[in-house]
Amino acid sequence: MLKAEIITSGTELLLGEITDSNTPYLADQLAGLGINLYYSSTVGDNYQRYSGVLKQAWDRSDLIITTGGLGPTQGDITRDVIAGLLGEELTVDPDLKKELIEFFSRRGIEMPENNLRQATVIPSALALRNYSGTAPGWWVEKDGRIIVTLPGPPAELQSMWTNQVLPRLQAKSDAIIVSRTLKTWGLSEAKVDEMVAPFLSTANPTLAMYAGPEGIRLRITAKADTEEAAGALITEREKDIRGILDNYIWGVDDETLEGIIGQLLCSRNMTLAVAESITGGLLACALSGVPESRNFFRGGIIMPANAAEVGAESAARMANQARREFAADVGIAIDGYAGDAEDNARDAAYIAVDAASNQGTIKANYPARLPQMTRRIISHALIYLRDFIRS
Amino acid sequence: MLKAEIITSGTELLLGEITDSNTPYLADQLAGLGINLYYSSTVGDNYQRYSGVLKQAWDRSDLIITTGGLGPTQGDITRDVIAGLLGEELTVDPDLKKELIEFFSRRGIEMPENNLRQATVIPSALALRNYSGTAPGWWVEKDGRIIVTLPGPPAELQSMWTNQVLPRLQAKSDAIIVSRTLKTWGLSEAKVDEMVAPFLSTANPTLAMYAGPEGIRLRITAKADTEEAAGALITEREKDIRGILDNYIWGVDDETLEGIIGQLLCSRNMTLAVAESITGGLLACALSGVPESRNFFRGGIIMPANAAEVGAESAARMANQARREFAADVGIAIDGYAGDAEDNARDAAYIAVDAASNQGTIKANYPARLPQMTRRIISHALIYLRDFIRS
Repeated sequence: MLKAEIITSGTELLLGEITDSNTPYLADQLAGLGINLYYSSTVGDNYQRYSGVLKQAWDRSDLIITTGGLGPTQGDITRDVIAGLLGEELTVDPDLKKELIEFFSRRGIEMPENNLRQATVIPSALALRNYSGTAPGWWVEKDGRIIVTLPGPPAELQSMWTNQVLPRLQAKSDAIIVSRTLKTWGLSEAKVDEMVAPFLSTANPTLAMYAGPEGIRLRITAKADTEEAAGALITEREKDIRGILDNYIWGVDDETLEGIIGQLLCSRNMTLAVAESITGGLLACALSGVPESRNFFRGGIIMPANAAEVGAESAARMANQARREFAADVGIAIDGYAGDAEDNARDAAYIAVDAASNQGTIKANYPARLPQMTRRIISHALIYLRDFIRS
Repeated sequence: MLKAEIITSGTELLLGEITDSNTPYLADQLAGLGINLYYSSTVGDNYQRYSGVLKQAWDRSDLIITTGGLGPTQGDITRDVIAGLLGEELTVDPDLKKELIEFFSRRGIEMPENNLRQATVIPSALALRNYSGTAPGWWVEKDGRIIVTLPGPPAELQSMWTNQVLPRLQAKSDAIIVSRTLKTWGLSEAKVDEMVAPFLSTANPTLAMYAGPEGIRLRITAKADTEEAAGALITEREKDIRGILDNYIWGVDDETLEGIIGQLLCSRNMTLAVAESITGGLLACALSGVPESRNFFRGGIIMPANAAEVGAESAARMANQARREFAADVGIAIDGYAGDAEDNARDAAYIAVDAASNQGTIKANYPARLPQMTRRIISHALIYLRDFIRS
């Protein structure tokens, strides 16, 4: 099995100016391929230090993925560092040069001389096209190792990865890895751990658990010679787990709670409106971000929490107001106390749902005023809404 | 000057299950202290690989900061790895043991045997108290190097850093480093670069530029023997830059656009309401997150973009509706086309502001339908609102 390593370059990362979202993305992708990621490191735009990190990776890993350092400036040194390590010469690739000139001319500008650096390759490198930027990537194979060189902007990196790197890595793989994530709500991590304990120690498929603001996730990963065989292992284990966790499971894989709500509403031809105070607009954001939102999301009202009136009754009134104002079939509201950290007794969120024929409210006992609780309150509200619609 | 290195441990990071927010936090803190961070790396919970990474850091850096791996389980090996590197023995510290037992007894539970691992130290380590969790950190000084060992949960790490590590590092520092960030809007990175070019190559103070969705930031960093002397260098350079960039600068340091708007409204005793379509609630979120929001933020309306009517007139109507419905002094609206990626001509955001005596709208020519444009549109709207209120 391939041993992989990620190298991220960029002095701005080491100054804490930006956060690296590429490493978590790539780490997740590699896990899905069954490739072991043993190390990731960040290094500044310094030739000597970058070369040291790359040399070390070359000595201990089979697959090295670099991100960043492909821009047109003198500080973008990834190509130079790789050429240096492999003892190969950088030359301008005429096709890449032509594409770059065309990229700029479509924007009505002449290509700056500096950008020519982005058209350079070494003999071992196959250029990877960048359809949303000027920096091509590289796929380098030499001495039994692979170096994949990707641009730093996440949208460019992800598109290049999905279309040009992933298929090549899948072709290299000697086994098929398939994984499936089951998403639960309503049980603690310790409780889920206890309930699925016998499956946590099996080797194929494996089972891993993760906690987050949308509940506890369980990832089943199976390895086999064919996709069918891996899929069969997954299906069987999923059945075991569904037998135990029953209706705590609300979704699988990339499904989100807001997406589930959107599908449910669309399938019943229903519309939704929201009213929120302490969550300040994030519930509306989550729902309006769903692709089919224009078919079910009628709108939202955001109002400051009114300390004098917060409670189940206030939440119920908000849900009713949202439903009526936007002429929706269902209204949902989240209310709670903002501020006043001392007042623990009042530290809760109130969730209310309102339809013409039925209403409901619950009190969610979280420290609702804390910003890190917001997504958890929203998850709770969406689960409550789901059960309300279904009932 | 100290050469620093960060080592983050945790297999869950290498599986892409969680994102590391500690490294950007620490990187920013180190930059503020004038300490050079040359490398950061992530390694799994594997004794051999972690030891290799730590040994390398010991050989090339003066200050090593580790995060994570201080929990009570067998997978938490940071203490063991450091003890191994330094050839020292781990023993239970009676005071730490007593504190841990008390921590659990306050929660009405007996301390699990495993947690005793968290009370262990080596002779070179000074324990750092953890007031919000069970994992103490370490401050280790040996052979001219410092190892600082911090717990993984960000709230615990940041509290320990601020109260116990930062003062010790400041005491070690032979110079005072002060920095100030100037935040601009309305100029491209290339243009700012050109305008402040003479100051980008000076050694003390230094000037660095960063681009983001709130505009281009300029960070001035000065080093001197005293805080006053460093401050004087900063003030002088700030005057130079303000002379050039004039009223493109909207704020400094930690100031945010929504915070600036909040202060401006509070100082004039004015209230604000919002209406938004394509930004789906994020403008309301930004404003309701400002500490003094209850003094100026009256509420918001979120409505789906109505493809048939989008434009300056629709935005103006939305701003007026928001102002009237929430009885605010000013209404602000953002409208635009959602979806329809093919239709470039319509790909813009419309921003409108409405007060009893005055109204205004602008068209912002971004690809407004792209999620990554949302924060940029919101920044643009807030700058427009600021100028509207001031005018």
